[in-house]
Amino acid sequence: MTTVGDIPKRRATRADVARYAGVSPAVVSYTVNAGPKPVADATRARVLEAIRVLGYRPNAAARTLKIGSTKMLGLIVPDSSNPFFAQYGHAIEDAAAAQGYALLVVNTGGAPESLAPSIRTMASRQVDGMLIAFQPSMDALAEISSAGIPTVLLNQTTAVSGLPAVGSDLYAGARSGVQHLIGHGHRSIAFVGDSDPLDERQRGWRDALTAAGLAPGPIAASDFTREGGYLAGRELLSENRRASAVFVSSDMQASGVLRAFHEAGLSLPDDFAVVSLDGSPESEYSWPALTTASQSVVDMAAEAVRHVITPTEQTRFTLYPTSLVVRQSCGCAWPEAESGAR
Amino acid sequence: MTTVGDIPKRRATRADVARYAGVSPAVVSYTVNAGPKPVADATRARVLEAIRVLGYRPNAAARTLKIGSTKMLGLIVPDSSNPFFAQYGHAIEDAAAAQGYALLVVNTGGAPESLAPSIRTMASRQVDGMLIAFQPSMDALAEISSAGIPTVLLNQTTAVSGLPAVGSDLYAGARSGVQHLIGHGHRSIAFVGDSDPLDERQRGWRDALTAAGLAPGPIAASDFTREGGYLAGRELLSENRRASAVFVSSDMQASGVLRAFHEAGLSLPDDFAVVSLDGSPESEYSWPALTTASQSVVDMAAEAVRHVITPTEQTRFTLYPTSLVVRQSCGCAWPEAESGAR
Repeated sequence: MTTVGDIPKRRATRADVARYAGVSPAVVSYTVNAGPKPVADATRARVLEAIRVLGYRPNAAARTLKIGSTKMLGLIVPDSSNPFFAQYGHAIEDAAAAQGYALLVVNTGGAPESLAPSIRTMASRQVDGMLIAFQPSMDALAEISSAGIPTVLLNQTTAVSGLPAVGSDLYAGARSGVQHLIGHGHRSIAFVGDSDPLDERQRGWRDALTAAGLAPGPIAASDFTREGGYLAGRELLSENRRASAVFVSSDMQASGVLRAFHEAGLSLPDDFAVVSLDGSPESEYSWPALTTASQSVVDMAAEAVRHVITPTEQTRFTLYPTSLVVRQSCGCAWPEAESGAR
Repeated sequence: MTTVGDIPKRRATRADVARYAGVSPAVVSYTVNAGPKPVADATRARVLEAIRVLGYRPNAAARTLKIGSTKMLGLIVPDSSNPFFAQYGHAIEDAAAAQGYALLVVNTGGAPESLAPSIRTMASRQVDGMLIAFQPSMDALAEISSAGIPTVLLNQTTAVSGLPAVGSDLYAGARSGVQHLIGHGHRSIAFVGDSDPLDERQRGWRDALTAAGLAPGPIAASDFTREGGYLAGRELLSENRRASAVFVSSDMQASGVLRAFHEAGLSLPDDFAVVSLDGSPESEYSWPALTTASQSVVDMAAEAVRHVITPTEQTRFTLYPTSLVVRQSCGCAWPEAESGAR
């Protein structure tokens, strides 16, 4: 019986197996690789027994040299503990594992200049493909090109020249969220998110209001963090022109906005309705439960992995739809809302 | 200028570099490895230029064969998208990267029988060390032993024979949380978590009550999920012998408990006080913000990585203290509570 006390001080080598089985190292290789030369059954059994007893594993590095593939993919994200990326990363790991690939994960911390070193790390480990959740700079694009590794960009809103990419239709997602708030009778709807007027979510928010003949409500610029959402929520409360509802660009920010509103003693969603975007698992457990334009994370992960494992000549940008998950933060009552918890 | 259109169809080899620079492949090796033979400065410059132009990367697999190390660590967790493991995994990635190690992440889905295949996956990729967040079965222990790879177990409550391990003092954490609730004047305090009376958290809860001369309140057994917490919260409300406070075994479960209480129209924390355990980032943004016995995730990650990279002869179990982060769910008012958000 093998006990944990038996842990060998070093890994068994092919030579160890050969010695134990009383054969040449070449015969061990023939047995492990089923060729190129034949091995007699009795010899083969001796070698397999030696492999079992010594816990020998054929060397992955040697195999890599032979077949030119590490069967590893690399995932580069700003912050793997962000619930959205945690969910996305898990889906990518599932999709990769289903094809026999292992996943290396690197966090950049979010600084644009930290992307290039992360790409070099992945390249030096010779991953078979990279998945990068970043808007790459020119420097990073050059680094990707020089790495010569099939790469798919995640979280993109438009095609990036020369590289395949996947992303959610954030514009339509924001628009559908705001339309839902308008349907609840709100006439002044604020926005929390990126301050850039060209941001897809801000555009979707504005266009939904304009199409309904409404003026854009106040904008509270915010980092994509809970803390950023909290500060934006406080800012909305201090605005002179108060809104009665807000579209928030991510679930994480929305959890901060909700906290700011609760602290101010508001009754939610009556005093302030909230709709967000992402559909992370925790959005169902905020109070009130978030109505949110949910991203198709599992589908995007599967497509990105498929594309990076089997690159095609033509690059492609695939935009995935969001779907509005209606809960209570928008003002829908229990019976109307589809809640996963019941 | 390099453009993305230039992506080569195959990776540049040492032979390509040699041809471009007009030197022998051996000279390329001497340049890359700074030896063993000297290279003239002018030749060296030509080789480096060729490496730059062709985007050549010294072959990690070949280097691995030479130095016998992949500089990779493997992390095996039940679910990397669980906020606690997402936070823990990020801290481990940081600690590994600081030492030049990359991190392979494998999710098992939580089924005990899926651990052994995950260990074989890590072994076949020849990671230099494994970090496993599981209570290993005898089968899994045998697999770890046979892999012959330095391994540290995470999330352990006691020493596991023959393997180094780290874990939080959950007993003391639960005890301190319950003592805090007792300090608020509660006399009937419920428990949500593992139904096993020997569970560290349940023991800490019971011993704190007993030490204060109080009878244990109701126990609502629960999975370690938000949904499990939600169901347990509903169960507590239907109990005849109602408690006025509850200790919940994890932040995730607590978010479900809070939801159940809110849905029932309770005013929190006045109608029902809650203290949990973990200290995940989202615990600060629940409503009310959770008072929670926080685990020393960054310290545990650093210790586990250090131990797996530099294994010592003697195995060791290191227990880390938790620290109670006081917010509002326990009944503390704003000025008393230390809130990170302000």
